[in-house]
Amino acid sequence: MKKAFKKIVIVGVGLIGGSIGLAVRKKGLARSVVGIDPDRRALTKAVLRKAIHRFEADPRNYPEAVKEADLLILCTPVGRMLPSARALAPHLSSRTVVTDVGSVKAPLIRDLEPLFSACGGFVGSHPIAGRESSGVEAAAADLFSGSVCLVTPTNHTRPRALATVRRFWKGIGARTAVMDAQRHDQVLGAVSHLPHVIAYALVNTILAMEEEGRRYFPFAGGGLKDFTRVAASSPEMWRDICLANRDQVIAALELYEKSLERIKRFILEENAAGLQAEFERARVGKKRSQAS
Amino acid sequence: MKKAFKKIVIVGVGLIGGSIGLAVRKKGLARSVVGIDPDRRALTKAVLRKAIHRFEADPRNYPEAVKEADLLILCTPVGRMLPSARALAPHLSSRTVVTDVGSVKAPLIRDLEPLFSACGGFVGSHPIAGRESSGVEAAAADLFSGSVCLVTPTNHTRPRALATVRRFWKGIGARTAVMDAQRHDQVLGAVSHLPHVIAYALVNTILAMEEEGRRYFPFAGGGLKDFTRVAASSPEMWRDICLANRDQVIAALELYEKSLERIKRFILEENAAGLQAEFERARVGKKRSQAS
Repeated sequence: MKKAFKKIVIVGVGLIGGSIGLAVRKKGLARSVVGIDPDRRALTKAVLRKAIHRFEADPRNYPEAVKEADLLILCTPVGRMLPSARALAPHLSSRTVVTDVGSVKAPLIRDLEPLFSACGGFVGSHPIAGRESSGVEAAAADLFSGSVCLVTPTNHTRPRALATVRRFWKGIGARTAVMDAQRHDQVLGAVSHLPHVIAYALVNTILAMEEEGRRYFPFAGGGLKDFTRVAASSPEMWRDICLANRDQVIAALELYEKSLERIKRFILEENAAGLQAEFERARVGKKRSQAS
Repeated sequence: MKKAFKKIVIVGVGLIGGSIGLAVRKKGLARSVVGIDPDRRALTKAVLRKAIHRFEADPRNYPEAVKEADLLILCTPVGRMLPSARALAPHLSSRTVVTDVGSVKAPLIRDLEPLFSACGGFVGSHPIAGRESSGVEAAAADLFSGSVCLVTPTNHTRPRALATVRRFWKGIGARTAVMDAQRHDQVLGAVSHLPHVIAYALVNTILAMEEEGRRYFPFAGGGLKDFTRVAASSPEMWRDICLANRDQVIAALELYEKSLERIKRFILEENAAGLQAEFERARVGKKRSQAS
């Protein structure tokens, strides 16, 4: 059977890279899946889990590893994409299309797009899928099934590269939606990066209270447990995202601080009507996020 | 078969009151379950769902409704407990023990305990169980199965009343733990009330951003969806809780603001090491809350 892709190279075989490999192999989307990672243990696990066919950990062998690849997908944490891209770009052929899975788009595109002008071209992607566990151990072939992948072309994007990247995501079960990179960073800064910052801050608050010697976590009901789950996400990944999307995260954070300040004032002033109106308003959020 | 209780009166047939009724009847814990509520539609639904045997909506008939009750459980929102208790207390016999299910304990006990000194006595309870949906429609017989119910006796609590209340919660499947009321309010202010305030503030932030005309909620991943679910909880209930536990909620909120401010500063100053340490620290929270 003819495969849609001859060879796909996955750079960074963690949760997302590993899940992409599993999905590609499950769907029979490519003849060959190659994993590149500095971590040989992760690569070994990825082979054992059948997420990749072959791997390469040694930069000296990158030319062979990426040879004749149709698609190269950068799946490292955001802060490690640029060095990885710099090490790989010189070895790509004119047919290799490149994409990434970073949760921040505008700063990455600014850095990555020029690096790949000599090969098949670069298009940014952000699959809205994930879980709190990290590493290839947590990878799943169906992670992208029914999910949305935001694709962020620019004025320089080549139509063939965009078509290839969209075809790839559809091939592993995701719907693609095209979005402007700046707009992406503003929206995700609010609906994803901000909630993570908030969860980290809350869990650290409770930990600080426990330092006085008494226990708090055993009495956590549904509310806090959701936050602790979010706050168990990869620290390195979220550090990189917050720094790369600094301006949008800070802007969202400042709006949030105002919203929190308003509720705090209503509680302090015992303004029951104000507080109820504030809480009533938030109910709409559930409907709007379910409608998606 | 001899039932553990002859007659149990549930005041307020919402999610918690309704679930108590369903559990009592399922476990065969009482010969008769009576619901009291100003809302006749809720009472009708509670009868149809077999959460209660009989009901009373008219205060003139309260003496008959509570006659010979072994246990009366106040399940109204926190802000409506005192008027309900005042209307019922004069009609209780010396054998009727009273408890409540309020999420705040010290201020309620201060108000309620003296009202029930002539009957079988009052002991505060707080079942750590619930769901975001409210009303008797959302009630479930197994809501308390395997849950913890915090019981908060005082120096004035009669041993028989405490034993009755603990026996009741065990009878419907909850483990009971005794806790000081002040301590309860401090702990729950941090692990339950604060997360709700935070969720309301976050969802309102995103709603405010959507007012500029663009959509945010459709791009919500796991993080925000958990928050929108928490922020869909009953506004009246959470208004009452925040106001009744004002001082502890404000104290927890101020610690949280410091924690948030620290993360914000690390992002602004692009302090990668500080940010990573802050995020690493939060991972412990998941382990501690799972250990419970």
